[in-house]
Amino acid sequence: MRNIVAPKSCFLVLLLLLFASQLASATRKSLNKENPCKRFVLYYHDILFNGSDVANATSATIANETKLGNFKFGKLVVFDDPMTRDNHLHSPAVARAQGFYFYDMKSDYNSWFAYTLVFNSTEHKGTLNIMGADIMAAQTRDFSIVGGTGDFFMARGIATIETDTFQGAKYFRLKMDIKLYECY
Amino acid sequence: MRNIVAPKSCFLVLLLLLFASQLASATRKSLNKENPCKRFVLYYHDILFNGSDVANATSATIANETKLGNFKFGKLVVFDDPMTRDNHLHSPAVARAQGFYFYDMKSDYNSWFAYTLVFNSTEHKGTLNIMGADIMAAQTRDFSIVGGTGDFFMARGIATIETDTFQGAKYFRLKMDIKLYECY
Amino acid sequence: MRNIVAPKSCFLVLLLLLFASQLASATRKSLNKENPCKRFVLYYHDILFNGSDVANATSATIANETKLGNFKFGKLVVFDDPMTRDNHLHSPAVARAQGFYFYDMKSDYNSWFAYTLVFNSTEHKGTLNIMGADIMAAQTRDFSIVGGTGDFFMARGIATIETDTFQGAKYFRLKMDIKLYECY
Repeated sequence: MRNIVAPKSCFLVLLLLLFASQLASATRKSLNKENPCKRFVLYYHDILFNGSDVANATSATIANETKLGNFKFGKLVVFDDPMTRDNHLHSPAVARAQGFYFYDMKSDYNSWFAYTLVFNSTEHKGTLNIMGADIMAAQTRDFSIVGGTGDFFMARGIATIETDTFQGAKYFRLKMDIKLYECY
Repeated sequence: MRNIVAPKSCFLVLLLLLFASQLASATRKSLNKENPCKRFVLYYHDILFNGSDVANATSATIANETKLGNFKFGKLVVFDDPMTRDNHLHSPAVARAQGFYFYDMKSDYNSWFAYTLVFNSTEHKGTLNIMGADIMAAQTRDFSIVGGTGDFFMARGIATIETDTFQGAKYFRLKMDIKLYECY
Repeated sequence: MRNIVAPKSCFLVLLLLLFASQLASATRKSLNKENPCKRFVLYYHDILFNGSDVANATSATIANETKLGNFKFGKLVVFDDPMTRDNHLHSPAVARAQGFYFYDMKSDYNSWFAYTLVFNSTEHKGTLNIMGADIMAAQTRDFSIVGGTGDFFMARGIATIETDTFQGAKYFRLKMDIKLYECY
């Protein structure tokens, strides 16, 4: 009898093994660039304070540009910007982006960002923490999503940024393609 | 003889398999919100420099608040603050918190932090790097622990923050519940 | 016949199992301090703008030191610094380090960094995002590499820093030993 049981056991083992190897490689599989475990697009709207438009402004300069070049090197801006699902400034904000950016190149416009996306809606509660270089010369550039909390507990990923419009020093809008590769 | 060996091998395989699947799912298991792999509470004490109390102060304003609202929007503070095990300012510091925060809301008090917890005691040597939005309106708020070094090599987790006391512009104390979900 | 097939199957299963357990423990294995999945050394050159040397300078002060102690507490510098393979300032830059540092101790020199290594060469395209405390009193200190993009997609690791030279307020050079423990 045993010689019949044996192959059956082995078959069972093989099935379990396949299941286990699925588990084992899950982390790796989810880290395919083309296959984030969560993805959504939001638009970031930044209206720089001019000293009097308190009602409209969403950001303010806290350190002035230096004389190192002609591209605002060192200008530091703190923001609390609305994030919307489409590219209309007055669409309902589904999150806030709170953080800062500064300009950091003497030969061209270039900047660096660190901020938190704060979600507090029926759909999402929690935060995503993001940082990276905004290499403006590139059509798109990637920031790192380095952590998350609440609904985004321990998340990591990439935010791909694209300038959607730029109206002088007053207003600019970024498209942010949020791609999470670690979801828990 | 072989038909007796076969089931025994399979049983051994099954045991190994169970062991392997434990390994495989270890990373996932440890990422249960209720079950950090390491946890401890520390208190953060911030005494803002008033221009003359060098001996006591632990932080200093490096950019002044702007006129965007009435909640210190843009005020930027650098700190080197003691971290203690209980909420007494003069308890021995078990770590230092080195970094910065700034206020970032025009309609209420709200801030944003990035800092390193520096441990240099017999108990712990190493650092934890932390960032996140301090949404002061919430009873507790979560920062991301985005990396660690030394004893906290490659750690990730969540620091849950709660205001323990707030004495005007001069002193405030935060309770930080440090929860690591990735430990190596 | 079956009683011959059975042991063979089990042997096959065992092989597959060993393979699967390799997969399963890959993440853990790669997180051995001595065994990064990628490692390289770069030198960071910082030439602080003195108000007139636009051509040479690579960084600029955007907030002045405070009077909290005598070690530049609060001085904030934004940089766009060349990274070279050897410790010669004029060697070809293989990356740029874009970000900021500030001094944060009242009793000694100490600083804090957050920056992005931007690679745009035939060898590497992408970024690494880094933050941490520069505890200058230590021979070496560790920053966290908290994320990566492009060729460094989703990378994490440790950057071990060592001061290579320091020439007053004008120029300093850091050796950065970049060790990635999560590579995808």
